[in-house]
Amino acid sequence: MTHGGPAAEEFIDAERLWSRHMELAGIGGLPGGGVDRQALTPDEGRARRTVIGWGREIGLEPGMDPIGNLFLRYAGQDPDAAPVVTGSHLDTQPTGGRFDGVLGVLAGLEAMTALHAGEWKPARPLDLVIWTNEEGCRFAPTTMGSSVFAGALPMEDALAARDEQGVSVAEALESVSGQLGPIPARTHGFPMHAFLEVHIEQGPVLEERDCPVGVVTGVQGLRWFRVDVRGQTAHAGTTPEQHRRDAFVAAQHIVAALRQHVFAGTDHDDVRFTVGRFQVSPGVPNTIPGHVHFTIDLRHPDADRLEKLGDAIEAICVNHAGPCRVTVEDTPASPPVKFDEAVVELLDSSAKAVGIEPVHLMSGATHDAKWLSTLTPTGMLFVPCERGISHNEAESVKPEHIAIGTRVLCRALRNLSAT
Amino acid sequence: MTHGGPAAEEFIDAERLWSRHMELAGIGGLPGGGVDRQALTPDEGRARRTVIGWGREIGLEPGMDPIGNLFLRYAGQDPDAAPVVTGSHLDTQPTGGRFDGVLGVLAGLEAMTALHAGEWKPARPLDLVIWTNEEGCRFAPTTMGSSVFAGALPMEDALAARDEQGVSVAEALESVSGQLGPIPARTHGFPMHAFLEVHIEQGPVLEERDCPVGVVTGVQGLRWFRVDVRGQTAHAGTTPEQHRRDAFVAAQHIVAALRQHVFAGTDHDDVRFTVGRFQVSPGVPNTIPGHVHFTIDLRHPDADRLEKLGDAIEAICVNHAGPCRVTVEDTPASPPVKFDEAVVELLDSSAKAVGIEPVHLMSGATHDAKWLSTLTPTGMLFVPCERGISHNEAESVKPEHIAIGTRVLCRALRNLSAT
Repeated sequence: MTHGGPAAEEFIDAERLWSRHMELAGIGGLPGGGVDRQALTPDEGRARRTVIGWGREIGLEPGMDPIGNLFLRYAGQDPDAAPVVTGSHLDTQPTGGRFDGVLGVLAGLEAMTALHAGEWKPARPLDLVIWTNEEGCRFAPTTMGSSVFAGALPMEDALAARDEQGVSVAEALESVSGQLGPIPARTHGFPMHAFLEVHIEQGPVLEERDCPVGVVTGVQGLRWFRVDVRGQTAHAGTTPEQHRRDAFVAAQHIVAALRQHVFAGTDHDDVRFTVGRFQVSPGVPNTIPGHVHFTIDLRHPDADRLEKLGDAIEAICVNHAGPCRVTVEDTPASPPVKFDEAVVELLDSSAKAVGIEPVHLMSGATHDAKWLSTLTPTGMLFVPCERGISHNEAESVKPEHIAIGTRVLCRALRNLSAT
Repeated sequence: MTHGGPAAEEFIDAERLWSRHMELAGIGGLPGGGVDRQALTPDEGRARRTVIGWGREIGLEPGMDPIGNLFLRYAGQDPDAAPVVTGSHLDTQPTGGRFDGVLGVLAGLEAMTALHAGEWKPARPLDLVIWTNEEGCRFAPTTMGSSVFAGALPMEDALAARDEQGVSVAEALESVSGQLGPIPARTHGFPMHAFLEVHIEQGPVLEERDCPVGVVTGVQGLRWFRVDVRGQTAHAGTTPEQHRRDAFVAAQHIVAALRQHVFAGTDHDDVRFTVGRFQVSPGVPNTIPGHVHFTIDLRHPDADRLEKLGDAIEAICVNHAGPCRVTVEDTPASPPVKFDEAVVELLDSSAKAVGIEPVHLMSGATHDAKWLSTLTPTGMLFVPCERGISHNEAESVKPEHIAIGTRVLCRALRNLSAT
């Protein structure tokens, strides 16, 4: 390490880190052990207030931007220097778990607490961030706060979004601000020196490789398609096979051809192809289906490969529809993101310095870090989650794994804020 | 023809036959041209009363059995001889057509009206029957009246069946009986000399072969299966292909294997294989499905072949489930029915006598005649319906086709009732 001083990560308190997770899990806690703490609800307000309180114990100063992204500042020698930022989100799915998002906030807080205990005086400020509405389940879209921050979503569109009860983001944000009391305003989109996010993997790779920390090299690209197959509803008993225009059979052939296409000659590790919604109408046992609607979720880390795979989908659908008609709607794509190589390298060396040989992997899920990577050098650390289960009350991590991830984060933050 | 006398079918009045269809179509008529006249509703009562009135014009005497099957008797020289019976049903699907069932009743009535006009004095009585609740959409099961008549369904079970509003068959029957006024009681299950039923084909075969009359040789056997495939719900972005337990993919493989099995080495005309219901859970685009439930409707005219095809289904499901678990429920089978050869021969020669070379075909749908065939020599005549469409407001037939079918029926009734 080029930056001397005491090893701040030695001040990381694994018990405090765990007990703070459990305390936040009680805010919106569900009987099954999970959490329902959707964006900008009173419960999310309580969780923010709790984190602000813990930050104040080590002198972190809160500030909030107009979309509700909350920043807790660890002062640097040059108050005007671009800060090193870390954090994630506190909102959850309606039946979410205890670690998705929360880990990134509490790992950042714990790392700063350790730096504070080690009397670290950074050259530039550090900010702990709580992004607004990452999950997108109460208000669409997902990663709302970070996409507004990065200029990818207009502020007015975000503030006007409404939940199912008709409450707007602007209204919900006002309620939460009332809970938090006066907080100085921050602008959105301010310059950063770097952004780091710790998150549970939400997949099985780290657990399988028995590795406590993964260095994320980027976020897979994503394309979504909606496919409609239209045939002719008819009587299952009286209609011979050669007279049928069975939308289900056509959709079967289409999906089989699509799977053959996307997996042909590729490593299964790289391509993700999911038909998650598949609706058959009228859905009566003795009636030949006249209509099938299905979705395709296609992901790949390589932009060219994703484009090629996705661009072939419509023709494959049409060519395998048999006697049915098919239409394919290609919804806006999210291109793959590659994280900054220097940040990846720093996270890798930070892991090695705490004795871990990290796995390098792509993120299959989207995170706030995706938007930040358009503004500033960005990186992510993953920690294993049990059986890869997430967005589920059963979501679970090992206390020692999140402590190790926090130690790696702490070293990297110290390094980035030293100059 | 061995039985002399005037050619009674010359008295068949195609216009009257058509206008009576249109008159009944107005009872429960829908704006789209179809009919909603479900079993034992006031509208079905009105339709019964109308047919009773038309029957009285030619001296037909009504009688009703305890499940509401209505018989209109054309007297024979021996009042105690087992009658020749013909008819069908007046109830419809909620968005049904104008001909399904009604045709069999009105063709029988028109044939008897023609016989009456020709002063036919049969050796044995003729009965025109209106079976109760053939459609089964208000009260389960289908073909309720005929299955009770044939002893296949206990009377008390049928009377106790309730609709979605909680009204029992017994209660609905009492209301309809009130509409009809006093009608002498008939027993159910009385001996018959023969049963004939005219029906629309509900399939495309006759139209395709440009033939106005089909002689039905039997009813396909039917087996129903319910299949549950259970995998593991997971994140579409983060879960690599080899870690997935995707219930949709497993169900895809299962259905492909099943289709290969049932169509291997067979004529597609003989086997009917339909997946009509296919439900994918949770049905979210970016979530790998953890559960699929689907149904199989399998039909074949040959009992041995149906048994063999159906008995292999469970093993095929299990063998193609990949990493998922599958359970198969085999619901009670309906074996194929072969109609009486002498009746088939009589219907064939009757068609030829009116100048038609009839197509011989199996019925893909179930009819009341299936139950009657367990009691008495039974046969059916099909007439073409436009594009095979049925159970649909668009159901349509050609007036000349139903007149031809009625002429064939008339000759056969005269023949069967001559001795």
